[in-house]
Amino acid sequence: MPTSAGHRLTPKGRATRERIVAAAAALMFDRGVAGTSTEDVRAAAGVSSSQLYHYFENKQQLVRAVIAHQTEAVLAAQEPLLSRLDSLPALQAWRDLIVDLQRQRHCVGGCPIGSLASELADADPEARQDLAAGFARWGSAIRDGLAAMRDRGELREEADPERLALATLTALQGGLLMTQTSRSTAPLEAALDMSLDAIRVMAPQH
Amino acid sequence: MPTSAGHRLTPKGRATRERIVAAAAALMFDRGVAGTSTEDVRAAAGVSSSQLYHYFENKQQLVRAVIAHQTEAVLAAQEPLLSRLDSLPALQAWRDLIVDLQRQRHCVGGCPIGSLASELADADPEARQDLAAGFARWGSAIRDGLAAMRDRGELREEADPERLALATLTALQGGLLMTQTSRSTAPLEAALDMSLDAIRVMAPQH
Repeated sequence: MPTSAGHRLTPKGRATRERIVAAAAALMFDRGVAGTSTEDVRAAAGVSSSQLYHYFENKQQLVRAVIAHQTEAVLAAQEPLLSRLDSLPALQAWRDLIVDLQRQRHCVGGCPIGSLASELADADPEARQDLAAGFARWGSAIRDGLAAMRDRGELREEADPERLALATLTALQGGLLMTQTSRSTAPLEAALDMSLDAIRVMAPQH
Repeated sequence: MPTSAGHRLTPKGRATRERIVAAAAALMFDRGVAGTSTEDVRAAAGVSSSQLYHYFENKQQLVRAVIAHQTEAVLAAQEPLLSRLDSLPALQAWRDLIVDLQRQRHCVGGCPIGSLASELADADPEARQDLAAGFARWGSAIRDGLAAMRDRGELREEADPERLALATLTALQGGLLMTQTSRSTAPLEAALDMSLDAIRVMAPQH
């Protein structure tokens, strides 16, 4: 049974595996997957080749671990807001957090999940499915907040939380890519503000 | 003076240069820039190394020609609609065209400009500027249609064509990436429909 899935690892083994994945994630975020060799990862993580191949049979397996790692990191960076997007002020605070994060990074880097998706979606079917699942988790968190608002009567009955959440996450992804390209948060702000307006007009008093 | 900018080329020279750029664009669209060597391009275009280096001093120069080529191709694929996005029916027809194009491609490939942007924005400052300029041209075409609508009184005075166009292009970019990742046009449709709604609510009779 391969140890790559994280089963049956000692605490020290888990720490080594995590160090390799974190090093790979950082390199792939900076240089892309194609621009990162397993040798680069090995050197950055400070492990031997035999250690690296003990945890990951090949680069593809390492890439899938990086996708899982980045998905957790991206979702965690939006907490505690992401799990409670169930009011207009919470949505506004989340929008501001995302814009501030890009501003702090000087608009460099884009979305860790979106960048991997752009590079891997057509090249690696399993990676594509992992990335789609990551987007789906993200969208579900947004949808759950909107559904709670609708259940409490803060959005009208005809509001569609699933579709509003999908449009919002999609606008956010476009915003991160366009912001990375233009080195300005204007596209991200325009797209997220449009999404929040689309939610706001579904409020009953509107 | 380098011939790479397309100056002083004979018709035959221009055709050869264009064949190289088209081959490079196709390969980079399929495999990414990092996954495409100048040797791959040379072989696909059926030219010699000395011919390739006669037109392009290095890979970076070739990449910039590919960005210019893909920008023209992407904008041309949306004509004649893109130059006349000055009514709600025209915007709806344009939205349908973009969704249909992705459906015909089975949601494979994403946006030729957006994919290059994701790969190159942080790695190549000159490429990033070219890509930002390509997005700006695209956004301007959308803005011009919306500005014409406002001038004719079909959008209210307080409508902001620049910001609406930026939000729409941003939503479109997110839609192409999410559609490529999920292999479904649902994200693209949700994001573009949200954009069209944002424009529609600015109509005076609304």
